[in-house]
Amino acid sequence: MPKLILLRHGQSQWNLENRFTGWVDVNLTAEGEAQAVKGGELIKAEGIEIDRAFTSVLTRAIRTCNLALDAAGQSYVPVIKDWHLNERHYGGLTGLDKAETAALHGDEQVKIWRRSYDVPPPELSADSAYDFSKDRRYAGSVLPLTESLKTTLDRVLPFWDGSIVPALKSGDTVLVAAHGNSIRAIIKLLFNLGEAEILEVEVPTSNPLVIDLDAALTPVSARYLDAERANPVPVLQG
Amino acid sequence: MPKLILLRHGQSQWNLENRFTGWVDVNLTAEGEAQAVKGGELIKAEGIEIDRAFTSVLTRAIRTCNLALDAAGQSYVPVIKDWHLNERHYGGLTGLDKAETAALHGDEQVKIWRRSYDVPPPELSADSAYDFSKDRRYAGSVLPLTESLKTTLDRVLPFWDGSIVPALKSGDTVLVAAHGNSIRAIIKLLFNLGEAEILEVEVPTSNPLVIDLDAALTPVSARYLDAERANPVPVLQG
Repeated sequence: MPKLILLRHGQSQWNLENRFTGWVDVNLTAEGEAQAVKGGELIKAEGIEIDRAFTSVLTRAIRTCNLALDAAGQSYVPVIKDWHLNERHYGGLTGLDKAETAALHGDEQVKIWRRSYDVPPPELSADSAYDFSKDRRYAGSVLPLTESLKTTLDRVLPFWDGSIVPALKSGDTVLVAAHGNSIRAIIKLLFNLGEAEILEVEVPTSNPLVIDLDAALTPVSARYLDAERANPVPVLQG
Repeated sequence: MPKLILLRHGQSQWNLENRFTGWVDVNLTAEGEAQAVKGGELIKAEGIEIDRAFTSVLTRAIRTCNLALDAAGQSYVPVIKDWHLNERHYGGLTGLDKAETAALHGDEQVKIWRRSYDVPPPELSADSAYDFSKDRRYAGSVLPLTESLKTTLDRVLPFWDGSIVPALKSGDTVLVAAHGNSIRAIIKLLFNLGEAEILEVEVPTSNPLVIDLDAALTPVSARYLDAERANPVPVLQG
């Protein structure tokens, strides 16, 4: 039966500094690298054989994917990199830390952005230092200028349907090494969670979430491989 | 115009021990990892932007590819992994060191295998500890049981023609992170070298060989990025 492993990237420099990262290509910290290796070792210890991996075009997810595959002794697994698995685009908040965001927009507004499903932050301004449209990895693509969790899900969905679902339906064991919110998008879809429920789901960094699926891709079981760093696993709704 | 970068993997554990490695999935040494990173830094310093990378299904080449792309700040480049870029298959010599090989087969015979273009070592025996046919990365493929340099070239060629040539013809800058003999195969082809000439070509580990090509994929120039560790570059023949 198909098996899906969701792996959030290890700690990045801006996780540490508590800044809105989104699409900024921040690297892993040494701790984040160690977390990625640990994730791969857990996959190996379980005897899980990955057939195919998907990741974003952001370095922290790609390196987590590669380090985990290396540690699992499965470097040879094909890896597809696609920007539709990128982190949520934080628009005009990109690069700001908590204090800067509160000073600019006020605590109440920040709470709304953090806790709402469909309210996006302001768009990235045209003169921003973070103009991703000139980055060659996005050449030929129409990019968002900001995203809510809802619009993040909207752009993950076609990639899920077009690339990941066919692999799972063929019976593959699939690794998705991605980001807090692109992984939330997949979890909302698979477990049929509501808007309020998905906002409560926190996926720990680089702790493989192994989901066994039936032929219709309905989750049969879900567990984190690192039990000590596990959050509650999502439960199928409705 | 198209540009090709040939990158031989960094030092592996068995390079160090002087054993016939071939298809055995030996990892990089710490020195080999550092060489791979250096290769990527040189690519970055040259301002070369890679569009597409190809590597084998052997860990030492894949990790060299990934480490070099990371160091070049280009982790997001698509990477295709294919066994047709594997090292030459050393058949029954696989795993033997120099002394063991000489003791088993005699110095004269070893010289013949080392210096000939088309004499393969004995086939891997059915009860060998190195039975690659059971390795899932080769599932569905008909594998050689030994290879000469000639038969190595014979299996690299279809992959070159079918996958690498189309990328180059589209004007891409292509990285091929592979092995001493699969890289020799490409060099023999590109530079139209004879059988004796290609045997003289020694590609240093993890020193990017940058080859500028014209539209017909004839080499216009070739140079190693690390001048201090460079061997003579191949020269177009005939």
